[in-house]
Amino acid sequence: MKVLILGAAGMIGRKLVNALVSSGLPNAAVSKLVLYDIVMPQAPEADFPVQCLKGDLSESGEAGRLAELDCDLVFHLASIVSGEAETDFDLGWNSNLRASWALFEAIAERTRKVSSEPPKIIFSSSIAVFGGPYDAAIDDEFLCAPQSSYGAQKACIELILADYCRKGFFDGMSVRLPTICVRPGKPNLAASSFFSGIIREPLNGQEALLPVETSVRHWFASPESAVGFLLHAADLDTQKLEGRRALNLPGVSCTVEEQIEALRSVAGEDVVKLIKPVPDARIRAIVDAWPEDFTAKRALKLGFKADDNFEAIVRNYIDKELSN
Amino acid sequence: MKVLILGAAGMIGRKLVNALVSSGLPNAAVSKLVLYDIVMPQAPEADFPVQCLKGDLSESGEAGRLAELDCDLVFHLASIVSGEAETDFDLGWNSNLRASWALFEAIAERTRKVSSEPPKIIFSSSIAVFGGPYDAAIDDEFLCAPQSSYGAQKACIELILADYCRKGFFDGMSVRLPTICVRPGKPNLAASSFFSGIIREPLNGQEALLPVETSVRHWFASPESAVGFLLHAADLDTQKLEGRRALNLPGVSCTVEEQIEALRSVAGEDVVKLIKPVPDARIRAIVDAWPEDFTAKRALKLGFKADDNFEAIVRNYIDKELSN
Repeated sequence: MKVLILGAAGMIGRKLVNALVSSGLPNAAVSKLVLYDIVMPQAPEADFPVQCLKGDLSESGEAGRLAELDCDLVFHLASIVSGEAETDFDLGWNSNLRASWALFEAIAERTRKVSSEPPKIIFSSSIAVFGGPYDAAIDDEFLCAPQSSYGAQKACIELILADYCRKGFFDGMSVRLPTICVRPGKPNLAASSFFSGIIREPLNGQEALLPVETSVRHWFASPESAVGFLLHAADLDTQKLEGRRALNLPGVSCTVEEQIEALRSVAGEDVVKLIKPVPDARIRAIVDAWPEDFTAKRALKLGFKADDNFEAIVRNYIDKELSN
Repeated sequence: MKVLILGAAGMIGRKLVNALVSSGLPNAAVSKLVLYDIVMPQAPEADFPVQCLKGDLSESGEAGRLAELDCDLVFHLASIVSGEAETDFDLGWNSNLRASWALFEAIAERTRKVSSEPPKIIFSSSIAVFGGPYDAAIDDEFLCAPQSSYGAQKACIELILADYCRKGFFDGMSVRLPTICVRPGKPNLAASSFFSGIIREPLNGQEALLPVETSVRHWFASPESAVGFLLHAADLDTQKLEGRRALNLPGVSCTVEEQIEALRSVAGEDVVKLIKPVPDARIRAIVDAWPEDFTAKRALKLGFKADDNFEAIVRNYIDKELSN
């Protein structure tokens, strides 16, 4: 199976590459891996050929170039993050919606031309497709009323993907990832960046700014869970989705206070003291529009597995990122 | 107030034009009316100037041409109908989503350039944004999981409109019209065409084909109610929508059997005998994916008014279309 990863140089992309190189796909052999990103992805050592491509999917001709690779499985993780999509309106709509649609069109065009099995596309969507007011825990039938450009773009891509799939141009689904925590590395432009920062920076002996109240509740998955979701989605018989190809994934719902408690329990009070409350109204306004908890019944029934609790998420970060 | 109607030559478009010419807007004076459609709209006699334009919104430059008219209020009714969008996949996505997005972009670009008040856009969406399985009556928080290209296109346009509004590029909302019944004139390519045909053709002494079982339940509004919804939306303070700019409208839920009963009650058994059951699996499959009933609580609270019952819908057709 020839696998293409868009956004392969990103945090989840790199972890997905590592997982494919070390363990392969759940029920299929990888024959070739193509890595694509706006910066040149690094090729891992692997038992199969790995091709690295640098490009901007929103540029003319790029979608067609990727479609012509005739990959069997496409992980579409490429995205402008939420904060940037909110600040640069045109960039967000162009790089997220227009580019994704161009990819789907190019792959559909390819399917019409060649007689081989249509590929499968796994699209990493987000809980930012939702907007308040919410029920206490959002169920699988709750509407998408995004209150951010990023969320609106993800919701549109989900709808287009579903219709192209319904028509048989490709197979696939959209997985609505919880906020990934703890993200390794540096803070990014996502408004959600601090949720990782308040764990990561203190564990690295650095101060972390907390822009919201500790009562803020949110919905989390570790990077390893996210990779697990993507691999499980790639393996899933999409007939089981019964035409609803966008799926709320399971996660851990907890408050910032509970995040901090988990950090205290794992790393102690001195580490927690490195968190400095510095309220930021702009971040607070964006985060306020985000959901806090989900039932994720369909995903659990379909075999998607979340982290046990936030302490497990903190330990996961220490194991994977700090012990090396 | 300068008003632009896209899709002005269509059935609802023409009725909206007539309403504006005879009664104006609820709380504003019309200073000029611009009618745009893919066929040249007919100019009505009016107390204000009326400009008629022929064009295809999906063609390059058309959206910009319309934006430069600097209209204060835009009714966007232009659309490829459901049956055609299902048969011609590329045409539907291009003429519905791509063209609508181009319009929104062109108007946003205009708002950035000129200092005047941004215009208001009322977009005629559809209950085809929903897909089963459904609750008995769909509430205002129910997800959009369309099972037709037409529905997916409408849902995407709603999302894009809402985000452009949120950012202040224009004001506006999407009104999810029930299936319009009784449509005057000839059958069209919409899969829902027969819902009108089984009333209209018999009342005109002609045979009508019924492609589905009489137990099929659906959701209706008369053309006059639809025009009323559009005018009420134009007048509505969109702050009251609290960021959720797509609205399920009130309507009449009834089965085909109840439709036929209403026809019998108004026009008698001889007229009803002109309905011939001719099952059509393709139509049935499309209609099966449509909703049957709505609570429409938000819309009712916001002052949108539906027809009293299906008999009123039949009488409305006779009054407006057959008595002239």
